[in-house]
Amino acid sequence: MDIETISEQRSFGGVQGFYRHTSAVCAAPMRFAVYTPPQAAHGNVPVLYYLAGLTCSEETFVIKAGAQRLAAELGLMLVAPDTSPRNTGIAGENDSWDFGTAAGFYVDATRSPWSKYFNMYSYVTRELPALIAANFPADATCQGIFGHSMGGHGALVCALRNPQQYRSVSAFAPIVASSQCPWGEKALPRFLGDDRAAWKNYDATELVQQKTFPGTILIDQGEADKFLVEQLKPELFEAACAKVGQALILRYQPGYDHSYYFISTFIEDHLRHHAAALTQD
Amino acid sequence: MDIETISEQRSFGGVQGFYRHTSAVCAAPMRFAVYTPPQAAHGNVPVLYYLAGLTCSEETFVIKAGAQRLAAELGLMLVAPDTSPRNTGIAGENDSWDFGTAAGFYVDATRSPWSKYFNMYSYVTRELPALIAANFPADATCQGIFGHSMGGHGALVCALRNPQQYRSVSAFAPIVASSQCPWGEKALPRFLGDDRAAWKNYDATELVQQKTFPGTILIDQGEADKFLVEQLKPELFEAACAKVGQALILRYQPGYDHSYYFISTFIEDHLRHHAAALTQD
Repeated sequence: MDIETISEQRSFGGVQGFYRHTSAVCAAPMRFAVYTPPQAAHGNVPVLYYLAGLTCSEETFVIKAGAQRLAAELGLMLVAPDTSPRNTGIAGENDSWDFGTAAGFYVDATRSPWSKYFNMYSYVTRELPALIAANFPADATCQGIFGHSMGGHGALVCALRNPQQYRSVSAFAPIVASSQCPWGEKALPRFLGDDRAAWKNYDATELVQQKTFPGTILIDQGEADKFLVEQLKPELFEAACAKVGQALILRYQPGYDHSYYFISTFIEDHLRHHAAALTQD
Repeated sequence: MDIETISEQRSFGGVQGFYRHTSAVCAAPMRFAVYTPPQAAHGNVPVLYYLAGLTCSEETFVIKAGAQRLAAELGLMLVAPDTSPRNTGIAGENDSWDFGTAAGFYVDATRSPWSKYFNMYSYVTRELPALIAANFPADATCQGIFGHSMGGHGALVCALRNPQQYRSVSAFAPIVASSQCPWGEKALPRFLGDDRAAWKNYDATELVQQKTFPGTILIDQGEADKFLVEQLKPELFEAACAKVGQALILRYQPGYDHSYYFISTFIEDHLRHHAAALTQD
């Protein structure tokens, strides 16, 4: 599991790095970003994974969210993978902004030709954490996950299916019911086939009704988000959580849209939410 | 002085906006960014101008510096102009990354053809403040200025030449002696002619020896900055300040480079430096 360092730069007393490796599960080169906080000089630190949304890359969160300041204060490592494999050679991979390249939806595809490369679920939950544990001063027993939009969907799905692996989860403007929105209805049949039963493994509103997450889930949602009504539908997840007793803090933020101006405004609350679970004991 | 709103988005309880207008002094369309803090709902607020460096635009600082959080806390308006006029039609304006487009060096050009459009000094010190005062809840009697690299040079020059206009000044990794570095030696003759006497009006190390600034100047400089020795030369400004008794805090930051990871790490110190001067009575 060799990794190549693309760049490393001092940031808030720690190091913001970008790295590249050849992914086994995605059968392609993949890039990811790691912020190593200053506390890592004295021992392994908790790890917080961030999954970005449609059209984004491993750079988006690093540049726009303003998270390093808090990570340095709280002693958290931040890991941000790319949003899909790229340049796989699959015909049409770059044709849509909401399917294919930068739109992997954090699933393990089962339909050819996508299944050879588009296995972001295994990448995020298995391959990347092993890579981080082997190459960075990370406490692999202490992980949280969060994300934005498509990445908020990914974070909720990863945490709900692996509560033993993630101690904390949160999301900004997540797709909470991938089976019930146009983005999911376009991508999921191509990745997983037409049988909607297979989609349930990647639908947070379905998953929470099968098994709840041990901690409180934090979600922020901008009220001026143009995707709110048609794509995001947080009320579906809220109702499912209420039905099964899942602890949820869902905050509607007046005037905020879907952008990183929204994310950066509330990033501190999210990092403190994770730190409370990851840096206890 | 009509301005066109390109976008406005909620950020830290205020509004991050991008705007466009036709500049009189630059004889071209110009873009600029304004962050209006929440305190502006209750009256005019102090204004802090930020000048960006080579290759940057009005977006760079807004996206990468993480300044809105502090501006919202401290009640400061942030104004970030573009770094030059663009698409003027001058032959060769886009040929170099360090001269012409995005490299206006904050001078009023006197040499044809640049003199028709490249008048960033008058734009920053006169036209833009008048536009801000007329269109935003700004306290025009209470202004500060800072910048990065070429923009740090611009900030120092604007403040030293107009101490009655700016109450505070600071810089990240500034070009402090434009007459004595390759960037200046390339740009200044094309904008101003070969007579070095004309360059002195745009050289902070020369200007501070003519007249000091009433407040303390804050400069942060990364020690791992690849431009430090050949282009930036803070020791020249430090010696000039010592000679004339200019109050200067020059901090060398070990491990930091020339990037916005460096700027974002120390942005809080700079905004507090300005707020101390701008929010007192």
